[in-house]
Amino acid sequence: MGRRRAAAKKDGGAAYQRRRQEILQVAAGVFKEKGLQGASLNEIAEAVGTDRASLYYYVGSRQELFADVIREAVEANVALAEEIRDSLDPSPTKLRRLAVGLMESYAANYPFLYVYIQEDLNRIGDRERTAGAHAMNRKFDAAVIAIIQGGLDDGTLRSGADARTLAFGFIGMLNWTHRWFEPGHPGPGASEIGEIFADMVLEGLVTTRSRSRKR
Amino acid sequence: MGRRRAAAKKDGGAAYQRRRQEILQVAAGVFKEKGLQGASLNEIAEAVGTDRASLYYYVGSRQELFADVIREAVEANVALAEEIRDSLDPSPTKLRRLAVGLMESYAANYPFLYVYIQEDLNRIGDRERTAGAHAMNRKFDAAVIAIIQGGLDDGTLRSGADARTLAFGFIGMLNWTHRWFEPGHPGPGASEIGEIFADMVLEGLVTTRSRSRKR
Repeated sequence: MGRRRAAAKKDGGAAYQRRRQEILQVAAGVFKEKGLQGASLNEIAEAVGTDRASLYYYVGSRQELFADVIREAVEANVALAEEIRDSLDPSPTKLRRLAVGLMESYAANYPFLYVYIQEDLNRIGDRERTAGAHAMNRKFDAAVIAIIQGGLDDGTLRSGADARTLAFGFIGMLNWTHRWFEPGHPGPGASEIGEIFADMVLEGLVTTRSRSRKR
Repeated sequence: MGRRRAAAKKDGGAAYQRRRQEILQVAAGVFKEKGLQGASLNEIAEAVGTDRASLYYYVGSRQELFADVIREAVEANVALAEEIRDSLDPSPTKLRRLAVGLMESYAANYPFLYVYIQEDLNRIGDRERTAGAHAMNRKFDAAVIAIIQGGLDDGTLRSGADARTLAFGFIGMLNWTHRWFEPGHPGPGASEIGEIFADMVLEGLVTTRSRSRKR
């Protein structure tokens, strides 16, 4: 079956790829609801409306399915962060572009990327498979740190703190949306949330500038 | 066994309580490493250096153990947030106190509270047990939203955005520390991270105020 699947993945044509994408979509929903550990291939097969044996023609394992579900979207976000880092925009503009772009990606790939965020990679268990994901996370974090460090260095940003802590604060605001944001629900949309967070972190919320500053 | 445990929990004396606390500490470490779904009572018993049967004298189930591990600390943080909300401090000071206080709690209760944050409550499965935790989270969120709304109303904070989105951004910065902060490791400590995040959100990072503001 593994060989048949490998051949089909490579040469299976549009119908095979369409069906496979369909399975990935349904699987993402099951993962979102149950978590990676809680979602069995049987449940995914049931949700797809097929049986486990047929599912194996499209996917090798739950781990592989999960990895496929998120890999493309994660890679695109790392590429976005690195493109922004390497652009000629001033640092504040870079942070704003990143916040809006990431939120738009979370919405466009909903719930794929929130599944990915929700899972603590250290708990997935398969080191080889998660190594790639860890590397992607490190690349993303590094790009955000570099954007902020660039701003501290050229004076477009100021802070008494280190770029790493600031970057994790910024990333945290954005990634925590996996616990409360659902596209299409009432309230600000994805792009707007990105703008709000960029405003909050760049401009600050206090009206009397001197009141709480300790630096 | 359930009855013996109930009696011991109530009247077991200092030695029973000390042993029970010890088990909770070890269990928290196992939960942190493996996740709630991944950590079995057998593994916890092994880490404690006892067997599963003896463990039952102290804890009824994995769910109960997890709930005990985090309940006290979570309740203390909700109480902190509500005390701050009801204080006479100006809103910016309230947010700073909350950021520092929460980070200090995360460090003091490490890794208990990060276990709690890491678990998506919707996936734990036992609705009755998690209902209390959900209620606590809602209370905490509501206190932060009220603090920010108070500041927007009295003019000590300004934003074009709604208090809820701002509150979730702020909470996200703090809660995302469960993915990267470990007390005692190099870098800023818990209180300092709270101060850094408060500065970031209150004062903003840009030097030229007009550059990126869109409001």
